Amino acid sequence: MNIDVLTLFPEMFDGVFGHSILKKGEENQAVKYNVVNFREFADNKHKTVDDYPYGGGAGMVLKPQPIFDAVSHLVEQANTEKPPKVILMCPQGARYDQKKAEELAKEEHLIFVCGHYEGYDERIREHLITEEISIGDFILTGGELGAMVVIDSVVRLLPGVLGNEESHMRDSFSTGFLEHPHYTRPADFRGMKVPEVLTSGNHKLIDEWRAKESLRRTYNRRPDLLEQIELTDQHRKWMAEFEKEEK
Amino acid sequence: MNIDVLTLFPEMFDGVFGHSILKKGEENQAVKYNVVNFREFADNKHKTVDDYPYGGGAGMVLKPQPIFDAVSHLVEQANTEKPPKVILMCPQGARYDQKKAEELAKEEHLIFVCGHYEGYDERIREHLITEEISIGDFILTGGELGAMVVIDSVVRLLPGVLGNEESHMRDSFSTGFLEHPHYTRPADFRGMKVPEVLTSGNHKLIDEWRAKESLRRTYNRRPDLLEQIELTDQHRKWMAEFEKEEK
Repeated sequence: MNIDVLTLFPEMFDGVFGHSILKKGEENQAVKYNVVNFREFADNKHKTVDDYPYGGGAGMVLKPQPIFDAVSHLVEQANTEKPPKVILMCPQGARYDQKKAEELAKEEHLIFVCGHYEGYDERIREHLITEEISIGDFILTGGELGAMVVIDSVVRLLPGVLGNEESHMRDSFSTGFLEHPHYTRPADFRGMKVPEVLTSGNHKLIDEWRAKESLRRTYNRRPDLLEQIELTDQHRKWMAEFEKEEK
Repeated sequence: MNIDVLTLFPEMFDGVFGHSILKKGEENQAVKYNVVNFREFADNKHKTVDDYPYGGGAGMVLKPQPIFDAVSHLVEQANTEKPPKVILMCPQGARYDQKKAEELAKEEHLIFVCGHYEGYDERIREHLITEEISIGDFILTGGELGAMVVIDSVVRLLPGVLGNEESHMRDSFSTGFLEHPHYTRPADFRGMKVPEVLTSGNHKLIDEWRAKESLRRTYNRRPDLLEQIELTDQHRKWMAEFEKEEK
């Protein structure tokens, strides 16, 4: 997969692309990153990328020309069969989730357009962008952090990136339930103890405890997720218990 | 504000804390960052920070000792009147939003605990962490990117960080509506034109167009936001128009 990022702050990506899974993805040749300062594509003498808004008001607006030309250049260079997804990170976009991550992980070429402070000229959204994505209802200074989040969640799904190919299958959201609590040594840490069942060696009881605690956490924290899961009779029995405990 | 981050990948933060608003926040002395590798606090000879899970299964679990001791050290060092918020970034946490950002912006000291691949020993959640935060329903390799997102959204709210103190007031979610479209020069870019009203010089009409387009975008993309806003008669009239146009 080719991942290009258009930004005015390319150095922001150094620390993130140079470590952990994102670095491993590149070492394994599962992905190739290319961070481009779109100021280089500005066709005016002063390399200006923004201008005042039509109709007045505070704030600056990113001009269409540098971004249109940078994307054209990247599309030409990548020369993939399938056209790329050109993604704008912005609070007005569709809410990002794991389903979207899985969808994007099937693409050959992603181009992220990251603005910073400024608005985008609407013609960029209308004629160049194929997806507007928001990572949540909060304001960030720019699109860069959102792009890093999306890239991390996509790259870890690419074949050969995670050490154990199955290991992302057990994650929260992949099963539909939140994860059960984990414990490791020591069994008694400054008076705080591990639940006895986990040191019992009885694997049937351990599996049961984990399934129940996973359900309990989902029931307490994210009951909305339960609506999308087919529950068993055992699940329903446990939920009746949780309800009683609340009273 | 003091912001401490506990992570096994401190270099991931270099690019982000060294640029843009986050850098400006530190230059203006609105905030002081401190990124700490909690491996330094491990009291065993091999500086091990994780161990196998009790009860078996794949994956490793972060041990309580290094994280408990790192947090104690940071709390002592900061010596603030109010106890710090100790924040765990994880998918099981409460969904992050702008309201939470505003709440955190009032704190004196935030400590972010970032795990990576591993689970957390439950005693960390139960006895050390004061807030569990999730930035959304997707899986990231670690808590680092989530912490960067939260930090960016909080630091830009601190007094003296954004150039224009009011400038964050016009953002999406601050007004309740999504932003209206923006345009800048040229008025005709490769055949794509700016709406005439914006070049008319009639500010009453421009304000009206913006209010209507802001409502339209919210109506089309995030109707859920409209439930939380007190709508005027004009708003309702426009919404009736949008509904007609759909048919």
